Amino acid sequence: MPVGTRGAVKGVAFDRLEEWDCRVVLANTYHLMARPGLEVIARAGGLHAFIGWPRAILTDSGGFQVMSLSAHRRITEEGVEFRMPEDGTKHFLTPERAMELQAGFGVDVAMVLDVCPPFPAERREVEEACRWTLAWAGRSKRAYAGPGLLFGILQGGTEEDLRRASAVPLVELDFPGYAIGGVAVGESKAAIRAVTELSAELLPAEKPRYLMGVGTPADLLASVRAGVDLFDCVLPTRNGRMGHAYTARGEIAIKHERFKEDLAPLDPACACPVCRRHSRAYLRNLFVLKDFSAPMLLSIHNVFFYLAWMRTIRAAIASGTLSSLASPPEEKIPEGA
Amino acid sequence: MPVGTRGAVKGVAFDRLEEWDCRVVLANTYHLMARPGLEVIARAGGLHAFIGWPRAILTDSGGFQVMSLSAHRRITEEGVEFRMPEDGTKHFLTPERAMELQAGFGVDVAMVLDVCPPFPAERREVEEACRWTLAWAGRSKRAYAGPGLLFGILQGGTEEDLRRASAVPLVELDFPGYAIGGVAVGESKAAIRAVTELSAELLPAEKPRYLMGVGTPADLLASVRAGVDLFDCVLPTRNGRMGHAYTARGEIAIKHERFKEDLAPLDPACACPVCRRHSRAYLRNLFVLKDFSAPMLLSIHNVFFYLAWMRTIRAAIASGTLSSLASPPEEKIPEGA
Repeated sequence: MPVGTRGAVKGVAFDRLEEWDCRVVLANTYHLMARPGLEVIARAGGLHAFIGWPRAILTDSGGFQVMSLSAHRRITEEGVEFRMPEDGTKHFLTPERAMELQAGFGVDVAMVLDVCPPFPAERREVEEACRWTLAWAGRSKRAYAGPGLLFGILQGGTEEDLRRASAVPLVELDFPGYAIGGVAVGESKAAIRAVTELSAELLPAEKPRYLMGVGTPADLLASVRAGVDLFDCVLPTRNGRMGHAYTARGEIAIKHERFKEDLAPLDPACACPVCRRHSRAYLRNLFVLKDFSAPMLLSIHNVFFYLAWMRTIRAAIASGTLSSLASPPEEKIPEGA
Repeated sequence: MPVGTRGAVKGVAFDRLEEWDCRVVLANTYHLMARPGLEVIARAGGLHAFIGWPRAILTDSGGFQVMSLSAHRRITEEGVEFRMPEDGTKHFLTPERAMELQAGFGVDVAMVLDVCPPFPAERREVEEACRWTLAWAGRSKRAYAGPGLLFGILQGGTEEDLRRASAVPLVELDFPGYAIGGVAVGESKAAIRAVTELSAELLPAEKPRYLMGVGTPADLLASVRAGVDLFDCVLPTRNGRMGHAYTARGEIAIKHERFKEDLAPLDPACACPVCRRHSRAYLRNLFVLKDFSAPMLLSIHNVFFYLAWMRTIRAAIASGTLSSLASPPEEKIPEGA
């Protein structure tokens, strides 16, 4: 799922996403509750109508962004009280309010309000996050009045026993889908993979499993092999804006001198509108000069590349060749640039 | 002609321009000679290959940008010596060098090196600009070795007699097309229109007449009625990035509060990818939040709108109804916002 924080995928207009057969985008409840706010979105006929995206929308609960406002928030059993750094306004996000927001947006997939512990964290802190996440999952489920599907979220940091212990009551709540939360918040690649594999195993295989906020093309393949079905990640757009392109041969840091006269496309095998037409030399020049089109063009390529990579993975599943599929290397080209 | 300063139309990828039947873009010699430089572009196979635009390209001579570096340049009869503020490098742009650059780029339409006086200017200064522009037009013509067409440029500021006196020898040089320069550099709307009408009249009607750097949709219509065939202008992209949208009802300042819940598209009659899908309320919210997609989406709309407006004008010429065609009003909506 491309990430459309404020209802727009940065640098990639929706007509492209439709043309590329993208079926679902993610939008952020935290950002949308602030501006334009639930009332404006509801009066517009819901989030699909407001943002002009007729296909599926998944929203997070707003919890993740709120939790990262460590200086501006206070978590209690009831919910999270916080001040928006943008305008200083005070808010109180409870499971019930998070459900009211997402139901009012009319999204296709809503997420329970959860507590995502930072990394590293004291074990006590992870335990508390698990306890509240579970309690809030129940409250979210009782409060959510549709029209979409509500997914539960598994937390537990990197503590295997806490993940295991949390999964049991969470699965008993019988959500139509589950997310793996608390991953890729600063822990090592090996820890991310281990937690993903464990979590996917603990969640029902017959229901969609969604890994939140991950990752590189190689991460996606590894996670699909572990049983994950859905992903969202800002990497293709955020890194695109910073001048990093994903390719079948690894990640390209386009501003590097070595691309100054490189007339090859970002990825010779890519069929995106950027690779069909533009060279690395051209894109590098635009980036060096900070041209407005430069971050846009790399974002277009990266989102296309990610969607194409997921299509490749789906095709490998369909043809029974997933285990032999090779993922793009993780190295940056040039290394250390 | 959409403006592609560094070989990219800011915010509007070339696949869109091709789809919208855009046949020519403008690129700036000044910017391209600095980076990536003639040698890199020539080794890439020319500017079409380097920027990935197979259709026509028109370049200015670089003169206009150099002339505006008033603190960093010295004009002599030989040419212009200047320092690039970006990197402090010293350059000497002569008519011969401007021709070498544009011939090396391999563009379809090249422009002579001219001297564009500022506004307001002493009459003596405008006279000198005319004299040098004429001498440089002759030198440019002798030096230009193709492959494109080389256009002459008429200067003369707002001085009617200087425009008239300059036109005679310029037309004698028998260029395949002519540009009207020195317009829209700070003078009044009425002066722009008067100079355009006079200049178009002084230049051969059977050759393309190109008005440089103009203007609003209403300016385009008035200039076409005066006989102008070609335009370039940064307004659709620059104003788009600033949050101003052109519509059949006037210019919209999208950030204004009054659009907060306005669910209409920018222009209900527009068929662009933005108007087919997005509301003013949505675009306003993205602009207020400085989302990266906001300037992109308004640029997409504006460039589409300008190309569609020129199609409308061409259709009116073809059907003999140009005199009754009404242009979009010049007012901003909301006024004074």
